[in-house]
Amino acid sequence: MKGKVVLVGAGPGDPELLTLKAFRALKSADIVLHDELIGPEILALVPKTAQLRSVGKRCGKKSARQEEINGLLIQFALLGFQVVRLKGGDPLIFGRAGEEIEALRQAGIEVEVIPGITAALGAAAATQIPLTQREVSSALVILTGHHSEAAFSQWPAQLPANATIVVYMPGYRYEATAQRLVSAGLDENTPCAIISHAASVQEQVHRTTLAALPQAPQLPAPTLLIVGKVVQFGDHASLQQVSALIEMEKDLVTMSETQFPATAGSQERSE
Amino acid sequence: MKGKVVLVGAGPGDPELLTLKAFRALKSADIVLHDELIGPEILALVPKTAQLRSVGKRCGKKSARQEEINGLLIQFALLGFQVVRLKGGDPLIFGRAGEEIEALRQAGIEVEVIPGITAALGAAAATQIPLTQREVSSALVILTGHHSEAAFSQWPAQLPANATIVVYMPGYRYEATAQRLVSAGLDENTPCAIISHAASVQEQVHRTTLAALPQAPQLPAPTLLIVGKVVQFGDHASLQQVSALIEMEKDLVTMSETQFPATAGSQERSE
Repeated sequence: MKGKVVLVGAGPGDPELLTLKAFRALKSADIVLHDELIGPEILALVPKTAQLRSVGKRCGKKSARQEEINGLLIQFALLGFQVVRLKGGDPLIFGRAGEEIEALRQAGIEVEVIPGITAALGAAAATQIPLTQREVSSALVILTGHHSEAAFSQWPAQLPANATIVVYMPGYRYEATAQRLVSAGLDENTPCAIISHAASVQEQVHRTTLAALPQAPQLPAPTLLIVGKVVQFGDHASLQQVSALIEMEKDLVTMSETQFPATAGSQERSE
Repeated sequence: MKGKVVLVGAGPGDPELLTLKAFRALKSADIVLHDELIGPEILALVPKTAQLRSVGKRCGKKSARQEEINGLLIQFALLGFQVVRLKGGDPLIFGRAGEEIEALRQAGIEVEVIPGITAALGAAAATQIPLTQREVSSALVILTGHHSEAAFSQWPAQLPANATIVVYMPGYRYEATAQRLVSAGLDENTPCAIISHAASVQEQVHRTTLAALPQAPQLPAPTLLIVGKVVQFGDHASLQQVSALIEMEKDLVTMSETQFPATAGSQERSE
């Protein structure tokens, strides 16, 4: 009897953010093929009797690896196993699940998809930044910065000002990213936040603006960039730790733009 | 001692798609204030000893009701209760959570947000439509059609062709919706799917194109509209049930456009 492949979204990292359905799928798996980013706490949920296999992709060998993964999924399902393909976040957003599903269908293997909390939702909940807000943001746009050079060309030429833009895997090319967003029509004073290790104990948040983004610290990956006026509504507690830094940066920006000393910028604001 | 308010995302409807964290929050709630759309299966998880209160909004009295909800949340938290504010999907997407959070902060009440599977992810998983796909769709745009006339003016003037557009609460103004999307730059042959009661036993899917959307059946609410080339990669099984209907509609469209009998259209395609 043929097995089945279940594509499971692991969410942003906290095992508590797995869905009940994902939790049960992990508990009843014979084999779990997982992305490299899945944390040990989630992998610990897989029964000791099940096989656990990392199929993390290495840079530069993408296509070959994807075909290899497809082959493994088909092979294990044909052997009659209950196979879980575990992906970070939601399987259908930037997870190449479409390609795996297509390969499985062509092999006549039954596929099920269990959704997961995608990074944008996890980070928004952790920082209490509303992704939409009446009269401020009426749309959510999710982009990826993965392999930035190529990714930028895929980004929409025009981005709406009354939307929230979330960039997955923004990398550290902050200046290029900010420039690309401004050239797509966003105001350079648009607030933004870099969120590192969202919804975990290592979470760090840096709030800034597109203009000052190039001066932002390189927080540890995985990170996420939220851009939009909604960022100002984020959790005061989690964001205030960096507010002093933001003020400092504003001064630096003012300075570099106007060639005036930082104190002049401060006086202007206090008038 | 002050209580706390936990904004919880209930997901698309299936209780199995609650996160473990949301499940536990419901189990330990003293009071649950929920939207009208939350199903009985999820509400059944709330302990018998807890208060359950629907705060569903009625048309035409929106603002007043939102202030009333804020007031209730504050009042119950001040009384020392563990309050759960339960919202469909994810609380931070089209849920007006930002306004509730702001009111609670101003009242000095502690707030926590537990994310949920937003409708786009639930529907995509159920229909196996990848929301992004290499070389096909590199961005996800989430819009709302709620109160369509006003909503349309909030939609981005330009929408990218290489993106997946998901419209929440699209309503039945199919013709106006299709026109708006085409005027934003989408090709009228772009595939789209209306998904009714996603991820539930009552799920119905109708796949069509923007050009033929005005002829689509009015599937029962809640519905969701997914627009983009990715729709063609959806689950063959769940989509093929309507393929005959689509063929029939194509004929009707051909007929109405060219005034030729339906058979002429069929013959053309079979050549």
